[in-house]
Amino acid sequence: MRKSVWRKIGLAALVLVLFVSGACAAGTNNDWGGAKAKYVFMFIGDGMGLQQIIAADVYRSSIEAAGPVPALKKMEISSFPVQGMVTTYSSNSFITDSAPAATTLASGYKTDNGVIGMDPSKTKKLTTVAQMARDKGMKVGVLTSVSLNHATPASFYASQPSRNDYYEIGEQLVGSDFDYFAGGGIHQHTGKDKDRKDLYEVAKEKGYQVLRTREEILAAKPGQKLIAVNPVLDGSNAMPYDMDRTEKELSLAEFTRKGIELLDNPNGFFMMVEGGKIDWACHANDAATVICDIFAFNDAVKEAIAFAEKHPDETLIVVVGDHETGGMSIGFAGTQYETFFEKIAHQKESYESFDKKIAEFRKGEEKTFEKMMPMIADSFGLRTATADERKALEEKAKAGDDAARIALSMTLSDLEVEELRAAFENSMLEKKERPKDEATFLLYGGYDPLSVKITHILNRKAGIGWTSYAHTGAPVALFATGLGSELYAGYYDNTDVAWKTMSILGVR
Amino acid sequence: MRKSVWRKIGLAALVLVLFVSGACAAGTNNDWGGAKAKYVFMFIGDGMGLQQIIAADVYRSSIEAAGPVPALKKMEISSFPVQGMVTTYSSNSFITDSAPAATTLASGYKTDNGVIGMDPSKTKKLTTVAQMARDKGMKVGVLTSVSLNHATPASFYASQPSRNDYYEIGEQLVGSDFDYFAGGGIHQHTGKDKDRKDLYEVAKEKGYQVLRTREEILAAKPGQKLIAVNPVLDGSNAMPYDMDRTEKELSLAEFTRKGIELLDNPNGFFMMVEGGKIDWACHANDAATVICDIFAFNDAVKEAIAFAEKHPDETLIVVVGDHETGGMSIGFAGTQYETFFEKIAHQKESYESFDKKIAEFRKGEEKTFEKMMPMIADSFGLRTATADERKALEEKAKAGDDAARIALSMTLSDLEVEELRAAFENSMLEKKERPKDEATFLLYGGYDPLSVKITHILNRKAGIGWTSYAHTGAPVALFATGLGSELYAGYYDNTDVAWKTMSILGVR
Repeated sequence: MRKSVWRKIGLAALVLVLFVSGACAAGTNNDWGGAKAKYVFMFIGDGMGLQQIIAADVYRSSIEAAGPVPALKKMEISSFPVQGMVTTYSSNSFITDSAPAATTLASGYKTDNGVIGMDPSKTKKLTTVAQMARDKGMKVGVLTSVSLNHATPASFYASQPSRNDYYEIGEQLVGSDFDYFAGGGIHQHTGKDKDRKDLYEVAKEKGYQVLRTREEILAAKPGQKLIAVNPVLDGSNAMPYDMDRTEKELSLAEFTRKGIELLDNPNGFFMMVEGGKIDWACHANDAATVICDIFAFNDAVKEAIAFAEKHPDETLIVVVGDHETGGMSIGFAGTQYETFFEKIAHQKESYESFDKKIAEFRKGEEKTFEKMMPMIADSFGLRTATADERKALEEKAKAGDDAARIALSMTLSDLEVEELRAAFENSMLEKKERPKDEATFLLYGGYDPLSVKITHILNRKAGIGWTSYAHTGAPVALFATGLGSELYAGYYDNTDVAWKTMSILGVR
Repeated sequence: MRKSVWRKIGLAALVLVLFVSGACAAGTNNDWGGAKAKYVFMFIGDGMGLQQIIAADVYRSSIEAAGPVPALKKMEISSFPVQGMVTTYSSNSFITDSAPAATTLASGYKTDNGVIGMDPSKTKKLTTVAQMARDKGMKVGVLTSVSLNHATPASFYASQPSRNDYYEIGEQLVGSDFDYFAGGGIHQHTGKDKDRKDLYEVAKEKGYQVLRTREEILAAKPGQKLIAVNPVLDGSNAMPYDMDRTEKELSLAEFTRKGIELLDNPNGFFMMVEGGKIDWACHANDAATVICDIFAFNDAVKEAIAFAEKHPDETLIVVVGDHETGGMSIGFAGTQYETFFEKIAHQKESYESFDKKIAEFRKGEEKTFEKMMPMIADSFGLRTATADERKALEEKAKAGDDAARIALSMTLSDLEVEELRAAFENSMLEKKERPKDEATFLLYGGYDPLSVKITHILNRKAGIGWTSYAHTGAPVALFATGLGSELYAGYYDNTDVAWKTMSILGVR
């Protein structure tokens, strides 16, 4: 038999296996017998594992602690009445990337890492819950803090062999007939080589308004399909981290509130809202930025909760992570059984924002560690001290001086100074001159060596550890409230999240 | 006012706060309205977070993988129909130790790290679900793979200000009137200074049989209270790791099966079974040993499942971790989005067992790394290769030679050899001569530097990371099946686990 025939048979068998494994989910009930939900929110915290959620809760609890007894103040998302645990592996790895993770949450089928909205053979297009909702006459919104054609949002409207085919994904975005896209912009909107027709122009031809200022976006009225792009975008067309948000921008919560206003109609709506940069901050091992973006995500969920209170019998809200990123832990070898989360409150900007300062500094004349250190102190609270200075602080702290106690707690140890200095030296090299060996990768993971070392040290001091610059295979938490939410209790696969949602929407 | 009066008022207020916070658990239903359970099993996986469970499932799935599509084969425990997520913080830290963790699971009240069965003021004794069951006329069993008076089992029968008061805890053990203690031995059974009356003698005076051989234990018949001690114990009176178990010993499953046989009676029973050394292997960052002890724990649960099948309407089985240990992750910076769990199948013995070989080696004459390396290869599969040897292996592997491919995958990188050699040099020093600085602690955490470096490297190669030698603050998974099990769905505090269990037992 010819090789290509075998290949086709093999692929067909694989598709069948995936179909069967998707449809025959073991042990969890995916069939909703009640009234169908009219308003469905799916909030996806990218990279948001259970560790990230408890980190945010422990952070707030530490900051607001009034006494010696820890009391965990949970966010809205972690206080939802129904909770599930979800396995996240893709069809070719126990560690998924965001493309198959979101494809599965949207379609109910697993696929390979890197693939958007198609089966692992990259021949069969999958249909998503958002498309089913659209075809049922509901309005559809897709919101994200990263670019609108990034893996997670893309998986709700596109089918592409590679998540990196941004232009092709963008073409499917403007052709989706969804009603509301909001948050980041369209990445590579004129193609990889900037030689294709501008997708924002195509969008207008397809009937979309494209708005780009806070005032215009907040003034938008229902009636016309809308692409609402945050006024400030980073180099990959994502919104800045919430920690770095400026007044002229919109928060994810504001985009969500506007979406609810625009999409509300007698046929109902489906809205997917992604906290996309939670993941990116986890990749960079920057806990303060992670936590801040989780609060922004939780604030967006609060908008849905407020809407649900007005439509209690018709609304379903599901909050889920797509995978865990970074191998984050509440606890670190050096801090043992204690946490000091109040220390990360000293961080004033994200690693991404500080990277720009490092880049400027690198262009300067006097590139010494001693000149850099005040900048680090300013943005992250970390400080150096001579033996005498340290002794003086210790005495003051012992005498009850609170400022001295805090200064002491933020003072770098000899080891930390040594590590920070090495990272600084490395960071001052041009990127192509930096060492490429295994040890260097394990230390900095391709990030600016200085900023990743700063957040590593700050996180360690707070009692937070990281094991990876990539994703991990930990199951994620799912929280649900409203109509049909009881279906989400239990420990099941991410395929089931889609089947349950489709069943409650009545589109299966 | 006198200081001691204020102290009393403060403590009383604290007790009240804890009482109220314990009793008024928010958002989860702790009241069971159905028939009361006659047979209740509480299995506690010490240090067993969600990461450890998925690691065991991924390991088995990787070993048994038949095709390119990952399919997660879940153990019995992770396949239970009801699942919950449980916060674990103690009354004075977001990272608990096993004493307050087990105290809370047993009593419903939080306490401080280090405290057994008492409130944080160490003045009020707490009553446990096991004691309530005993007082109701049920038989009670306490089983563990660590010593019988270690923190977790102790928290079900003892009240002591410190978990380190082994003798006093042991006195409460023999005075508990529980029917079956099994697994490890009584630690410090003649006191810290070996000058107290042997608690095994006291036990006999109190009517206990004490059995210490496999044959005697397996032949035991109902009728007399029994302390069944594994024939082999480590220096802390714990059972050896399951990976190192010899034929003359009993498995945790065998102790459980015997317990069911001895405790079964018309008034029912409460049985707590702890997989205690899962935690210890996590402390040592030894994933293969962790996974092996989780399988042994799961095998013990299978005994309860078999019993429940005969008494389906009267039996409740709850499986829960007390906290996560080690900050374990399925994923590591160096392996990024891939896992290679089949690599840890090369490990033939636990770090604890290998430590003994290192100790012997240290006494020898020719203490070179080159002489140690074959021992490491033998026990862990890790090997060194010259550049030429590596090239030859690569060519063979490319040509389809499976043995060469595997050998290559287990070959140490230059960085790994360098790290291993440094750890070896450190390990060859007498303990008191080893460096005590921060960097050394972060590397080895007080363990034998060589064995912890070996498991770190092996784990990293497999795609497993660790952040701590202590516990972490991650919520843990709870799995339940049988009568009343639906009460355990949701995301709640560890206090609620006790309230739910007491309610289903009908002892509240």
